[in-house]
Amino acid sequence: MVSYLNKAVKNNIKIMATGNINVSVENIFPLIKKFLYSDHEIFLRELISNATDATLKLKHLTSIGEAAVEYGNPIIEVSIDKEGKKLHIKDQGLGMTADEVQKYINEVAFSGAEEFLNQYKDSAKDTGIIGHFGLGFYSAFMVAEKVEIITKSFKDEPAAHWICDGSPKYTLEAADKTDRGTEIILHIAEDSTEFLEDHKISELLVKYNKFMPIPIKFGTKEETLPLPEDAEEGAEPEKITVDNIINNPTPAWTKQPTELETEDYKGFYRELYPMQFEEPLFHIHLNVDYPFNLTGILYFPKLTNDLNIQKDKIQLYQNQVFVTDNVEGIVPEFLTMLRGVIDSPDIPLNVSRSYLQADGNVKKISSYITRKVADKLKSLFNENREDFESKWNDIKIVIEYGMLSEDKFYEKADKFALYPTIDGKFYTFDELVEKVKPTQTDKDDNTVILYASNKEAQHSYIVDAQAKGYEVLLLDSPIVAHLIQKLEGDKEKVKFTRVDADHVDNLIQKDEEKISKLSEEEQETLKTTLTEIIPADKYTVQLESRDSDAAPIIITEPEFMRRMKEMQQTGGGMFGMGNMPEMYNVVVNTNAELIGDILKAESKEDKERLTNQALDLAKLSKGLLKGEELTNFVKRSYGMIK
Amino acid sequence: MVSYLNKAVKNNIKIMATGNINVSVENIFPLIKKFLYSDHEIFLRELISNATDATLKLKHLTSIGEAAVEYGNPIIEVSIDKEGKKLHIKDQGLGMTADEVQKYINEVAFSGAEEFLNQYKDSAKDTGIIGHFGLGFYSAFMVAEKVEIITKSFKDEPAAHWICDGSPKYTLEAADKTDRGTEIILHIAEDSTEFLEDHKISELLVKYNKFMPIPIKFGTKEETLPLPEDAEEGAEPEKITVDNIINNPTPAWTKQPTELETEDYKGFYRELYPMQFEEPLFHIHLNVDYPFNLTGILYFPKLTNDLNIQKDKIQLYQNQVFVTDNVEGIVPEFLTMLRGVIDSPDIPLNVSRSYLQADGNVKKISSYITRKVADKLKSLFNENREDFESKWNDIKIVIEYGMLSEDKFYEKADKFALYPTIDGKFYTFDELVEKVKPTQTDKDDNTVILYASNKEAQHSYIVDAQAKGYEVLLLDSPIVAHLIQKLEGDKEKVKFTRVDADHVDNLIQKDEEKISKLSEEEQETLKTTLTEIIPADKYTVQLESRDSDAAPIIITEPEFMRRMKEMQQTGGGMFGMGNMPEMYNVVVNTNAELIGDILKAESKEDKERLTNQALDLAKLSKGLLKGEELTNFVKRSYGMIK
Repeated sequence: MVSYLNKAVKNNIKIMATGNINVSVENIFPLIKKFLYSDHEIFLRELISNATDATLKLKHLTSIGEAAVEYGNPIIEVSIDKEGKKLHIKDQGLGMTADEVQKYINEVAFSGAEEFLNQYKDSAKDTGIIGHFGLGFYSAFMVAEKVEIITKSFKDEPAAHWICDGSPKYTLEAADKTDRGTEIILHIAEDSTEFLEDHKISELLVKYNKFMPIPIKFGTKEETLPLPEDAEEGAEPEKITVDNIINNPTPAWTKQPTELETEDYKGFYRELYPMQFEEPLFHIHLNVDYPFNLTGILYFPKLTNDLNIQKDKIQLYQNQVFVTDNVEGIVPEFLTMLRGVIDSPDIPLNVSRSYLQADGNVKKISSYITRKVADKLKSLFNENREDFESKWNDIKIVIEYGMLSEDKFYEKADKFALYPTIDGKFYTFDELVEKVKPTQTDKDDNTVILYASNKEAQHSYIVDAQAKGYEVLLLDSPIVAHLIQKLEGDKEKVKFTRVDADHVDNLIQKDEEKISKLSEEEQETLKTTLTEIIPADKYTVQLESRDSDAAPIIITEPEFMRRMKEMQQTGGGMFGMGNMPEMYNVVVNTNAELIGDILKAESKEDKERLTNQALDLAKLSKGLLKGEELTNFVKRSYGMIK
Repeated sequence: MVSYLNKAVKNNIKIMATGNINVSVENIFPLIKKFLYSDHEIFLRELISNATDATLKLKHLTSIGEAAVEYGNPIIEVSIDKEGKKLHIKDQGLGMTADEVQKYINEVAFSGAEEFLNQYKDSAKDTGIIGHFGLGFYSAFMVAEKVEIITKSFKDEPAAHWICDGSPKYTLEAADKTDRGTEIILHIAEDSTEFLEDHKISELLVKYNKFMPIPIKFGTKEETLPLPEDAEEGAEPEKITVDNIINNPTPAWTKQPTELETEDYKGFYRELYPMQFEEPLFHIHLNVDYPFNLTGILYFPKLTNDLNIQKDKIQLYQNQVFVTDNVEGIVPEFLTMLRGVIDSPDIPLNVSRSYLQADGNVKKISSYITRKVADKLKSLFNENREDFESKWNDIKIVIEYGMLSEDKFYEKADKFALYPTIDGKFYTFDELVEKVKPTQTDKDDNTVILYASNKEAQHSYIVDAQAKGYEVLLLDSPIVAHLIQKLEGDKEKVKFTRVDADHVDNLIQKDEEKISKLSEEEQETLKTTLTEIIPADKYTVQLESRDSDAAPIIITEPEFMRRMKEMQQTGGGMFGMGNMPEMYNVVVNTNAELIGDILKAESKEDKERLTNQALDLAKLSKGLLKGEELTNFVKRSYGMIK
């Protein structure tokens, strides 16, 4: 044909050829090995999925009367023949006739599960039929140099025995197997002998099959029977050998929420994370059929304030088969800090993140999860506010991050997001505004919300604000600058100010007359004196007429600059602000006795000594006295102890 | 045949069937779509790889005299026909005859590049032939509902026109194309119209093809010609329209190090990271043929002390085609903080990390890179130590991490890893030990290396140690506790102690008689008094006879506990130590005047006042005076300013 084509073209025959694209069979095995299954260990998951599939199909057929056999309590058995270098996977499912082996095994891309579904469409719903028989099976050749299938159908047909060494050649013989089901025998290749080790197979079974719906036996174990009630004293309890079943076929997420108590959810958390000693704070049971199928349980663990180290704890399953613990793109980013399980057949596998995010179902799943989490938080808040408050500091990082990144979540969370005060009270945003409006409204009619980021470091400023009757919040998340920036933009006439942004009389500016003990001339002299002593590259001197018993000097840090710097450090904010130098105001109380003393001091040395000691104390309160300055201060202060 | 099989089994015929496993062709397209190319956008990379491949093959054939045509300066042209909903990719490579289309396109798994290589084995080496024609081509069907190939071979054969709508049916016709090469026309599908947008195609070309070896044209651009020297004043410069070439076909890493100046390496860095304004500190040119093929350039950027945020900047290429920027498993983890390019055809793609790490070539590549980096650092150290020292703080995190994680690197780095002192001197380990041995050897013959982790926070302790003539290192990496733990285990008779681990006379224990001004009885009374005042849950009182002008009280933190806590915070250390409470020693100098005053004070109030003020000052020096205690201290201290 080949030379005919070129000739035809030369003779200007227009339609040269119409034909079928031909896939040369010699190349399909390397293709499967190279592209489909780069991760060798998944062969076991695939074979056990097939075994489970075959068992569930039989269950379905017996339930609708299409198979006249006893379903019983089938199990899947995995065993190692170390001497023979063989791994056996044996099920008690529907088995295959010789014809079916020909059809399902010898035609690689034929999808057995799909055809089955087409045939029994209506009744097959919700029976949890897994996977695509055929392709998965061939992953066996990644670790085996020869594979045998010995299978006996539930139908009244003889057993068949298929053997293939990984080339496209196979043999199919009669077999004398009499019990129903399929046994796969892998003759493990030289380079894969790790799959003949008990601990390796055990590890894989636990990793991929821990929650599969048919019991999986791997070896046996000894169990001690309880002593009968009438046992004689000193009687030895009886020991029996039982099947070692490695999986829990009915994990919590496959049940209805109504079937489960809080203790069951906690128990399942321990099953998922055996090494995790802390209990989860609460759970969210996911369960939806339409427009996509998803079940699962998410847990809120106790979270720290670190955004970086808590991810990759949610496990993704498909029909109880473990797929991955990377749910990026499926679960909204702010929820990847949670833990638990998601099970959905509607999530495309083996696809890139950008593809995932464009998938319609995945988008719907992601927003369903967001909504369920928001609803659960809302109901926890409504049902037991005290409990919700007690957990707030362990969960706030998720909620605040969600409010920043997902507008729909923000809308819902606005009703239950809490703003804790220094004294341990918790307000919603609306409650907070209602509470502080009377005392904390400034002359421009803005409600000024005061906050601290660190109870210890800003202690003296907090005390001052509280003494004035102000409510001070404790907002210590790393992303709080972003959150309050968003709130200020979203809410009307609300401003956030950190307690050390100015001295307490200026934090909330009101039209109040301030009377100074010092004349204007004295103030000018004072300012000149102080400006000469206090370094101008970092500090701006600001004279204020405050109460005479307020601190002679305090150091403040204007809100806007500080917040922009903080925002840039955690991503965002105004470009270039992150590298701006820190600038502080030195607020000098002209009515304080010590300031009068400085003004009146006769020698330059005295003025300097008094100013520097007061400035050092102000720096101490703001956490700015460090290194050599601190060492000198301490040395000087020892001398003053009497 | 099917019913024959079942019958055969019934009749107990032993060998029932031997045959070839058959891949049904109707299913190969969904297979390719679903499994091979989950990420749709890579179709363009595949098609341009094929076009490049075809061009390089022609170059090779002309160079060995097998093709009697002019190679010229071929380009690849990408263009969008928005109205016709078509995307064109056109090359000037060797083209295909109708026979070859039949062979290379209609046989999916047939590897054209492989056959080509077999045919021209010896002469084809190092011509950079890319990829596997055939499979890559079919990725076009992920975005196109119909694909056309119009191709004219360099051989004296007529052009051919292949059309396929994604079903296995194709048509092959004659075409009247007269210029050599292949044009692929994609009829973009409804769900993929984004690939008809200029910005999208432009983005993909830059992402995947920025450094491919054949020039790629995408549209045109206007260029302003320089004015001729004899131009009249006010003359307008001439503008011309030129091809918009999106790639640099000969990026720096494809050249020999001898062809490149430092400026070229810096220029290439800017090409790679156009948004990065800071220059790299230095580069490492990788170039190896055997036993694997690898080229590339790695850069050391300025690094901060944060281990978490610097990764995923190294780009992996295969024959100048971008593959990924995730080099986990290929580059040793400690080097993923570097930047640059690695190009190797010997790294398996699309495989899992665990598979990658088990691959022999990848292991060799990883250790080659480690060795090259170590050698480069060694030569930088040898050739210009001053410069190396000036860069140390920007690169130490990589080197220290490497010393901890790779034994081979540790051995090499031991010769050039630097230990900076508080005063800005830099020692190698051997130099350091030689320097401090005479003064810093303790009574058990251990050389005690003193260090601080923070110049500011530990200032008073540093000053004390320096006053005694000790050398104090500044070790401030987050992993330094692990590193010194390793060094202590590896080196003989060396101990690391942080300056605040004990008072200065005890940091390096020598057999010196200490004389106390207080009698034993007085010391006992003093201890009782102080223990009553100083809270015992956090502080242990320890009386020491020190110089009378040493601080009356200092607070110390024993080395072992602190280090174990730190190690556990960064992973490792002794289990359970991370949550231990902080414990401090209160070192009381029985020879200080103030301590005598406390002993002699008559009232309990005076004893308490003096002790607390001294303890507060000691806490200040150690950074422990915070919150309410600090506020009260400041208030009290204002009263003491006179």
